[in-house]
Amino acid sequence: MKPLGLVDGRIVDLSENVVPMEDRGHQFGDGVYEVTRLYNGKLFAFHAHMERLFRSLRELRIPVVYTEEDLRTAHQALVDESGITEAGIYLQITRGVAPRGHNFPENTVPRLTMSIRPANNATATLAKTGAKGLFTEDERWLRCDIKSLNLLGNVLAKQKAKENGCFEAIMFRENGVVTEGTSSTFMVVKGGVIWTHPLTKLILPSVTRKIIIDQILPGLDVPVIEKTFDVAFAKAADEAFVCGTQTEIMPLIALDNQPVGNGAVGPIAKKIQDAYQAIIDKECDRK
Amino acid sequence: MKPLGLVDGRIVDLSENVVPMEDRGHQFGDGVYEVTRLYNGKLFAFHAHMERLFRSLRELRIPVVYTEEDLRTAHQALVDESGITEAGIYLQITRGVAPRGHNFPENTVPRLTMSIRPANNATATLAKTGAKGLFTEDERWLRCDIKSLNLLGNVLAKQKAKENGCFEAIMFRENGVVTEGTSSTFMVVKGGVIWTHPLTKLILPSVTRKIIIDQILPGLDVPVIEKTFDVAFAKAADEAFVCGTQTEIMPLIALDNQPVGNGAVGPIAKKIQDAYQAIIDKECDRK
Repeated sequence: MKPLGLVDGRIVDLSENVVPMEDRGHQFGDGVYEVTRLYNGKLFAFHAHMERLFRSLRELRIPVVYTEEDLRTAHQALVDESGITEAGIYLQITRGVAPRGHNFPENTVPRLTMSIRPANNATATLAKTGAKGLFTEDERWLRCDIKSLNLLGNVLAKQKAKENGCFEAIMFRENGVVTEGTSSTFMVVKGGVIWTHPLTKLILPSVTRKIIIDQILPGLDVPVIEKTFDVAFAKAADEAFVCGTQTEIMPLIALDNQPVGNGAVGPIAKKIQDAYQAIIDKECDRK
Repeated sequence: MKPLGLVDGRIVDLSENVVPMEDRGHQFGDGVYEVTRLYNGKLFAFHAHMERLFRSLRELRIPVVYTEEDLRTAHQALVDESGITEAGIYLQITRGVAPRGHNFPENTVPRLTMSIRPANNATATLAKTGAKGLFTEDERWLRCDIKSLNLLGNVLAKQKAKENGCFEAIMFRENGVVTEGTSSTFMVVKGGVIWTHPLTKLILPSVTRKIIIDQILPGLDVPVIEKTFDVAFAKAADEAFVCGTQTEIMPLIALDNQPVGNGAVGPIAKKIQDAYQAIIDKECDRK
């Protein structure tokens, strides 16, 4: 059970120097990433993550030099070598190594680095009682639909959340329109209906969001409205939660230190949590 | 005369692996940089670059663990070892290495990597006849006053310029307000007056911009208006140019394939070019 890395098909220690300073990831954040969860030793929603990865690469015009099968093999190598069964597997692909200059270098080879680390149990525990969120300005770039390595806006907002005793920061644009969490999708429940930001260039097409909307909500008979809404609307909601691959479903029982609804985990969030765990159980042969 | 790197006080080959995959620069673009020019073997405007570097670090709350003198010594080591006298010296400092997580890790040590490469002569040659520019949407984040490693917006815009046979892309925000070039400051001349975007969070506080405004324009008796203007205003200007440490003063004789003024290098741009070279001559004992 040891965190490990993988570079150029080789298992490495995470402290090893494996990147030249002129890797485009290191100097420009010029690359994309994915994080896939491993439950019971099995990859969850792997195909959806790889589809999004290939989309991110295409949007940045980084050549796609790996097939989904290549990447599955790489994931499996990390699983096998590490012996970890409940994990987050991180993957990033940069545009490659070249003398520094803003425009795309010619003839570079995209560079894959990966790591495996045990999943964070604290998140699952917190999800039972719910967590606090805060609103902060969305200072990120206008292509947040690409899962890129340009994450400073997310980093600064998440740090602000942490310093205010909150699990997550929910971001809003200048006009007060709520976009998403720093590493999660934001949803609110109002009058039995779920509201969430539509899929535009301002938010990530979340894998968990898609599972909730396509696989979970129809079974719960809960409608979803994919439309923008503002901070005031969100604060007046009956329930709120963030969701994501590592976050799973995290109820937010307070926003900016004001209780959401009655200040406890709401019934719809609870049902979505249960349904999400059941989907994992099934796909990953858990329990 | 060999490009070289410097990491942890050690001179390295630029192809050497010197960065662990979990360096925050590699995974989040969580770091800042500067590029300083070397003329005649002497560093130009070094103090101004280091002042801006320290400001960028403070804004991102990356601990400042190097003094200006430390960094001058590191620059000099690269100059001495490489034997290059006309160079660009690149420096970046990341938040350090830590298990991946958005918020600031605790107890990490900021990580300095540097490189020296010969200056690009083609830019100086092109500056005599002028270059073409194009306008494109500014998709970057809202803290462009920090010289950070989150450069994908700049990368994509610069690539668009290149593919359209242009030297630089000039960016504008949603409202049409022109901000700056992807790696340069943008200025236009109209009726003998220079217009440029004011110093806000949307543009970099350029060292070259400051030299022009503080040291050059007073001597030329050319007033400067630091106010926002839009694309139409810029296209109707008498002259336009971009400036920066590596760009120096580059007249733009066409914007979006329309000639600026009479389509040749304008008299004020030429005077600024001459004055800028004279300042370099003096500070770097050149000629």
